Amino acid sequence: MLPQEQSVVTVHTHTEVISTVNNMQIRGTSLVAVAGAYALVLASKSINTLDLQRMFNYLGDVGKEVLDANPMNLSLEKSISRVLLAGYAAKVISSVRSQMEDEAIAIHREDLAANQLIGEIGSYLLPTEGAILTMSNSGALATTGYGTALGAIRSAHNRSKKLQVIVAETRPMLEGSRLTMWELVQLGIPSTLIVDSASGKYIASGKVNCVVVGGDRISPTGDVAGVIGTYPLAVIAHANQVPFYVMSPTSNIDQSEKTWESIGLVDRLSTEILQFSKPLIVPKGVNMHNPSVDITPSKYITGIVTEKGTIEPPFGNDLEKFSKPNTGIHQEDSKEMSHGQSFAKS
Amino acid sequence: MLPQEQSVVTVHTHTEVISTVNNMQIRGTSLVAVAGAYALVLASKSINTLDLQRMFNYLGDVGKEVLDANPMNLSLEKSISRVLLAGYAAKVISSVRSQMEDEAIAIHREDLAANQLIGEIGSYLLPTEGAILTMSNSGALATTGYGTALGAIRSAHNRSKKLQVIVAETRPMLEGSRLTMWELVQLGIPSTLIVDSASGKYIASGKVNCVVVGGDRISPTGDVAGVIGTYPLAVIAHANQVPFYVMSPTSNIDQSEKTWESIGLVDRLSTEILQFSKPLIVPKGVNMHNPSVDITPSKYITGIVTEKGTIEPPFGNDLEKFSKPNTGIHQEDSKEMSHGQSFAKS
Repeated sequence: MLPQEQSVVTVHTHTEVISTVNNMQIRGTSLVAVAGAYALVLASKSINTLDLQRMFNYLGDVGKEVLDANPMNLSLEKSISRVLLAGYAAKVISSVRSQMEDEAIAIHREDLAANQLIGEIGSYLLPTEGAILTMSNSGALATTGYGTALGAIRSAHNRSKKLQVIVAETRPMLEGSRLTMWELVQLGIPSTLIVDSASGKYIASGKVNCVVVGGDRISPTGDVAGVIGTYPLAVIAHANQVPFYVMSPTSNIDQSEKTWESIGLVDRLSTEILQFSKPLIVPKGVNMHNPSVDITPSKYITGIVTEKGTIEPPFGNDLEKFSKPNTGIHQEDSKEMSHGQSFAKS
Repeated sequence: MLPQEQSVVTVHTHTEVISTVNNMQIRGTSLVAVAGAYALVLASKSINTLDLQRMFNYLGDVGKEVLDANPMNLSLEKSISRVLLAGYAAKVISSVRSQMEDEAIAIHREDLAANQLIGEIGSYLLPTEGAILTMSNSGALATTGYGTALGAIRSAHNRSKKLQVIVAETRPMLEGSRLTMWELVQLGIPSTLIVDSASGKYIASGKVNCVVVGGDRISPTGDVAGVIGTYPLAVIAHANQVPFYVMSPTSNIDQSEKTWESIGLVDRLSTEILQFSKPLIVPKGVNMHNPSVDITPSKYITGIVTEKGTIEPPFGNDLEKFSKPNTGIHQEDSKEMSHGQSFAKS
């Protein structure tokens, strides 16, 4: 596990892909969505049949199984259905496999391209000099290779913006300490690690110019489900008039009528809180609860940065437009934050 | 260290008392203030002199040394000066020692009495049924034996109020997981442990009736310096119209003109974030910052519960009155929260 050990996990079956999601060897909506697409390709190659209907039934079941590993991941839902539809369109078994593989590769390439665009667009929103606060990991380790919110920081750094990154450790799994700090150290971007609770003090101190996070799922009205702790950051940023940007591919925008309750926001294992390494850090017999996702109402969000451009409040119309395929890039709308500019939310 | 090991530390010198403060074997403003008083008594007994002036010089130096172990602790400052003044009033060495000891015992008894009164008064502010969110430890382990915010919960539980306690773990030193959960398990009060970042989700869910915390130092206008993470809890409670009470003895009320900067809010050791037990949870070479105190502006505080009664906004006048000795108890002003009552801050 990073940061002690960096290892490449090679998978050969869709079951192994599901395991890497369950044990958090891979995480991040985009990365899981792409992995899910390849899981279906692996499944199509593992089944030895000449019966098209049997093949489709099997792949449909595998698709459900993969989605169950990360049920609230809308990008995964979309990529599974894209890969399945590509397969269903074929008339012979061999082209089922090749068309599914082509679609999975396309999804993979699109994610990398979307990330790089989010990085470009997002970098304009960051000040030329100053401190950016972030949490969890929205970098290369959570995507197919570049990152969303951390991608924007990376892109701004490459454009010679003089940024300091304040990273909240992100209990319980410490994606901030372990993954984001690892990426920032690799990239040579100055950064400081704090506990999650210290984010409030930093934002209130006036030393933070901007808060940026990734987002897991975006409702039609711009509320965002994100890693637990996203919501408090947004409220505190709002109370201190510090801009709060969610940076996320449009594949996370949900246009269905689903409620958060029906999506089933996941709770994770108690052991993540009770013990980090060996020693138990609580008395025996305690109850605990480990929710992994919270909802950030759109009123606390300054902008949602996608690969098609930045969506600003009121969010509804643009979210609908941007969630459709083939809508244009609105990069020209991006505003550069200049040093010392006032960031009060209008 | 709790919860694995419960041990009684016996100290024989003021230097040992200072060590227990530095390594957090004891914590909490009241407990440290009482320990500081006894540290001076130990020092008075350790010096073998018949020269009154030499005795006073030595005790003055020890007083400074003890205060340096916890410089922002106003109660400690007050108890050191009370014990020293009691000694200075004596004319012979032997009565210096006995008068200091009497004063230290008085401070000890007053703290226990203040705690029990805060528990009584605070318990009226809690609902007859519902969930209370707290963080860090404001219980018997942080005081001379009963607790402030946790004392109110304990007192309400003893009055048969049906309370659930939601406890934020309180990184980095996990006073919530280790100490508060330990006390709640001992007391048989139903409780659930969460990570600090999940407090936002709980408060926003509408399932939390009230947030209660202890406070380290209270400014003349009611801003409160508290364990890191107090401020975000208050902002989120305010955004969700959930009452936020600080429960604290009046010895923590500061009537000086000191600024927070001049008080020197402490940062703690990096290792508290970098490693909890053995393994390093961040990559090598990271910068980090471990602030231990934040400031909660009075506008986010519903009430400050002291042993003399509850102070409500605007705070100024009552804070001044309550910080003086011998002001009356206003327990009759305490209001009981009934189940289902609206808690909107007026």
